[in-house]
Amino acid sequence: MNLRIKGGPENEKIPFKEGQSILDALKGAEIFLTASCGGKGTCGKCKIKIAEGHVRITGSTKLTVEERSSGVALACQTFASGDSQADIFIDIPESSRIVVGDKIAVSRAQDLLGLVSSMGSKIEPAVNQVRVDIVPPSIGDHTSDLDRLKLVLDPLGLKDLNFSRDFLAGMGEALRASNWQAGLRHAGGFAISLRPVEGEGQNKKFGVAVDIGTTTIVVYLVELETGKLVDAGSTYNSQIRHGDDVITRIVHATEGGGLGELRQTVLEDINGLINATAQRHGIKTDGIEFVVLSGNTTMSHLFWGLPPGSIREEPYVPTVSYFPLLKGGEAGLSVNRSGAVYTMPCIASYVGGDIVSGVLASGMTRKKEIALFMDIGTNGEVAVGNDEWLMTAACSAGPCFEGSGILHGMRATEGAIESVKITPGLGVEIGVIGNNSRAASPRGICGSGMIDAISELFLKGIIDRKGKFTPHPEPDRKGAGSIRRGDWGPEFVLSEGAAGDVTLAEVDIENILRAKAAIYAGVSALIKEVGLDLSAIGKVYIAGGFGNYLNVEKAIILGMLPDMPREKFVFLGNTSITGAYLGLVSEGFLREAEEIASRMTYLELSVSSGFMEEYMSALFLPHTDSSQFPTVEKLLEGR
Amino acid sequence: MNLRIKGGPENEKIPFKEGQSILDALKGAEIFLTASCGGKGTCGKCKIKIAEGHVRITGSTKLTVEERSSGVALACQTFASGDSQADIFIDIPESSRIVVGDKIAVSRAQDLLGLVSSMGSKIEPAVNQVRVDIVPPSIGDHTSDLDRLKLVLDPLGLKDLNFSRDFLAGMGEALRASNWQAGLRHAGGFAISLRPVEGEGQNKKFGVAVDIGTTTIVVYLVELETGKLVDAGSTYNSQIRHGDDVITRIVHATEGGGLGELRQTVLEDINGLINATAQRHGIKTDGIEFVVLSGNTTMSHLFWGLPPGSIREEPYVPTVSYFPLLKGGEAGLSVNRSGAVYTMPCIASYVGGDIVSGVLASGMTRKKEIALFMDIGTNGEVAVGNDEWLMTAACSAGPCFEGSGILHGMRATEGAIESVKITPGLGVEIGVIGNNSRAASPRGICGSGMIDAISELFLKGIIDRKGKFTPHPEPDRKGAGSIRRGDWGPEFVLSEGAAGDVTLAEVDIENILRAKAAIYAGVSALIKEVGLDLSAIGKVYIAGGFGNYLNVEKAIILGMLPDMPREKFVFLGNTSITGAYLGLVSEGFLREAEEIASRMTYLELSVSSGFMEEYMSALFLPHTDSSQFPTVEKLLEGR
Repeated sequence: MNLRIKGGPENEKIPFKEGQSILDALKGAEIFLTASCGGKGTCGKCKIKIAEGHVRITGSTKLTVEERSSGVALACQTFASGDSQADIFIDIPESSRIVVGDKIAVSRAQDLLGLVSSMGSKIEPAVNQVRVDIVPPSIGDHTSDLDRLKLVLDPLGLKDLNFSRDFLAGMGEALRASNWQAGLRHAGGFAISLRPVEGEGQNKKFGVAVDIGTTTIVVYLVELETGKLVDAGSTYNSQIRHGDDVITRIVHATEGGGLGELRQTVLEDINGLINATAQRHGIKTDGIEFVVLSGNTTMSHLFWGLPPGSIREEPYVPTVSYFPLLKGGEAGLSVNRSGAVYTMPCIASYVGGDIVSGVLASGMTRKKEIALFMDIGTNGEVAVGNDEWLMTAACSAGPCFEGSGILHGMRATEGAIESVKITPGLGVEIGVIGNNSRAASPRGICGSGMIDAISELFLKGIIDRKGKFTPHPEPDRKGAGSIRRGDWGPEFVLSEGAAGDVTLAEVDIENILRAKAAIYAGVSALIKEVGLDLSAIGKVYIAGGFGNYLNVEKAIILGMLPDMPREKFVFLGNTSITGAYLGLVSEGFLREAEEIASRMTYLELSVSSGFMEEYMSALFLPHTDSSQFPTVEKLLEGR
Repeated sequence: MNLRIKGGPENEKIPFKEGQSILDALKGAEIFLTASCGGKGTCGKCKIKIAEGHVRITGSTKLTVEERSSGVALACQTFASGDSQADIFIDIPESSRIVVGDKIAVSRAQDLLGLVSSMGSKIEPAVNQVRVDIVPPSIGDHTSDLDRLKLVLDPLGLKDLNFSRDFLAGMGEALRASNWQAGLRHAGGFAISLRPVEGEGQNKKFGVAVDIGTTTIVVYLVELETGKLVDAGSTYNSQIRHGDDVITRIVHATEGGGLGELRQTVLEDINGLINATAQRHGIKTDGIEFVVLSGNTTMSHLFWGLPPGSIREEPYVPTVSYFPLLKGGEAGLSVNRSGAVYTMPCIASYVGGDIVSGVLASGMTRKKEIALFMDIGTNGEVAVGNDEWLMTAACSAGPCFEGSGILHGMRATEGAIESVKITPGLGVEIGVIGNNSRAASPRGICGSGMIDAISELFLKGIIDRKGKFTPHPEPDRKGAGSIRRGDWGPEFVLSEGAAGDVTLAEVDIENILRAKAAIYAGVSALIKEVGLDLSAIGKVYIAGGFGNYLNVEKAIILGMLPDMPREKFVFLGNTSITGAYLGLVSEGFLREAEEIASRMTYLELSVSSGFMEEYMSALFLPHTDSSQFPTVEKLLEGR
């Protein structure tokens, strides 16, 4: 029999053999689900829904009665049953999916090597290799293996190298296997591995860059010697089950005693991505020797297992800003246990390593020109400055542009509506990510799609300046382009399809307006604080999980981006992962990140009198003060 | 009902309540069994034998069919049954017992503080405390907790202190709990703990000295500030189940893939001792911040989890001689996870940290006088030298003096025969360790008892120069003082009692002669190698697990110790633990141990032509060359 996936291409059939689990069958088709327990039925993460067909399900305590009665099952505990030859139709919730070989991530990463060289850098990772030629022991020379190695390291200036228990446990065998001529790899004063010098080609070393977003986790698997991206993977941050934003996670860690659980959850997500990408290329995780992590301050604290309580309490102080180097084993990552794990430095409780990464990747701190950096993620941070000064602020935009809190919201992965155009006849033209593969009909809408949709609805007069639906010119219209009453109130239908309809409700629009208002107010307050106006800004770098593109024009109509000459805007995508990649492949970038962190001044908007006022004014489309959006007003006049 | 222990005092009754496990009932009477799983029935270590009475036993996969059918059960899985009110009689194998509050260890340790001051040292442990007064954060100063701490540490010369994940995880709370005025404790460049400065008295810090013997493990729990011994505990090294000596353990680790298991086993033994001693004094293991371990090279490698294969293969090279500092969590010890764990340096594959500890404790390297150091443990090592030179050798004596391989052999703990005198009428007068408590009748014989017994048997003509029984002058004699045929051949009865008879068989005597021959041959070969003769030796320091005392006179009659003026002999007991203690309470001793290790020359006896010859000659009582034992020959003439 075959497995068929709801929302997948109509003719795709995945072979499903008697006794096989759905998890395994999907893996065969390179569809990876989060299954941190390895398919033992104990983590409860590989949830799917059986839409049609007869299967054999092993009991699990990880599902609620409601879930079970609605057809939800664990993919690892659901097996092909011999009784039936009919195909099984399943639905895979977005939250169960690991996207390995993430096309968006890979395509955005295309020019990583170009970026490194355009910034005048070379591939020089912090992991170095020295060749050690050691005199073998003899009956007359009982010197221990380690002392023998140190004798060679001393003249290389490496006598104070730190040797972990894990390194020493493998050292004796490695020295003998390499016939006492080995390559010793080390980073940050820690010995990592010893490998035979010969046949080095088969002993490639790898590194991993990780973006720990509040909503999304992205992993790049990189060949360390060349800087080449081997693969990328992404998944939802499973901590989401304990809340959409950093505050609810901190509350869970602090008041719910869930710190250990949150740490474990994010580790499992990252390890799942590392394992799946490495496995896909036949790479042993032991060969992964360097990791650079980039995340906001709360995510970094939770990864480290540091109680995050003080981040949330006045005076909002993190426990650590500059993190020491961790060993792979100490971190709990699925990499070489002696491997080095670097955490991007944080600035303040609400401006973290992801922003340092982003500013690094933008290159703005290397130029005289004053630039504005905006990261539109779950939180929403802005920075302004140049090679002389830097200032930053956080504006808690919320996670809606990553799909959270929006009825049909989803991340910018396959099946997401990423562009929307409303034709004069009220037809809806949509662009769907990866429409040539299993995403024949859209499964939801991502951030760039939301921005498009709202600005189109506004331009076409379907919503007013407050984001409320106006009486529809064609009240009897059905399907795409119509307004209907949904479970959550009125909603605009973007598409209808086998995988379900995708709509945008009035409550969704409200959420998006609050998010864009927070971002715009943050920019305004920050620029005012430094005593400039927008005309002083030479470039606006925009970061965020928007997938392939962000339509700047429409984001200005929405009032999220300031009304400035369009050529000043540069969309950079996920700069948190790009910055982590840069640090992974060149040690100079790690030092640069630390320098950026040390000279960035943090502005606390929560005590800034101007911010709340700016926010209230920005809740309208595009803004209450229309003089701030002259080109949009002109456009509206021309309707 | 009550529990009664076979071999215990006749009237001792331990209350045993319905539903209670035997493990718990024994704990109430301060009898601790090895139960590394905490009493879950999964480690299989708390074996007892039900001799009489009705109990309820929960099934366990940790026992063989033979064991079960002979009445063996796990104490944690055996419960009082309501059906019966009759007392339960049990037998506790020596190997299941943890001896907490080990009286021998404590009494030998009496003068530890005196030793420290007699060596001109003070209590100055490697763990230091500095007071940190930190400016609390405010809304205008977002510096992270760690950066704030570092600001204070920098002028104290501690800016490069290494902070572990575990330390950082507790740091924020500790700083706030102490109102930003804390004591920071650190050792060897690692931050260990932060505690409130006030009420320091209630926050005493502890340390643990550990002797990892091949046969016996001893732990001293010490108050770090004062050097005071809080308690001592000892147990058999549970690795014994994989072989009595280091070679069989290495084989198990290498060929049997049992390295991880051996490491886990010794960790569980040590942790069991730490937990039991700490619990007895209401001390939290988190307050144990420093550990000094002393063991032979194989034991040290197994503790670290380093493959020991190369120790056994020519050219006999250990992986590590000078071990880096480990963190408590990395080591897997039941102490503060950021605590420092120091391992005494080793000299060669068969002369380890226990000998460095012993030489340190003897003080011989501080004097001009040439001294001989002999450690009669499972291996048997000797060293000779003074403040200018040092030479050492290993003579693989085997574990019989610690009770292994001897039918009724046992460690020098309660219930062991430690002295034997045969009266002219062939009566046997025995001295039993701890005869005032639960050891009313002896349970076995320890090393000093064996030495006494054999020299007495030899002097009284009951055995000949080869250690064989001569025709008994009273062939019809029964009981103590008689020779009878046992399961393993002829045996001399030392005592009869409720807990079973204690005998010494001809095969036991053979084993002991081999051991003493190896030791004597080692001494002879080493002294010859350095071109001296015995007259040059000013002092002979004797170490080993002999309990309260070693009868030097009788050890010379045995031919184990050289026939020298008796006043030159100094019995030091377990110097491995004494040296570990010294290193624990004063950092200067750790540096001294490293200096000893670096200047000790190792002589490989296995390639020394003289050794085998010396060994063969020493297999007799006292020796084939009677001229080497003039005072013994005189004694024999006088019989």
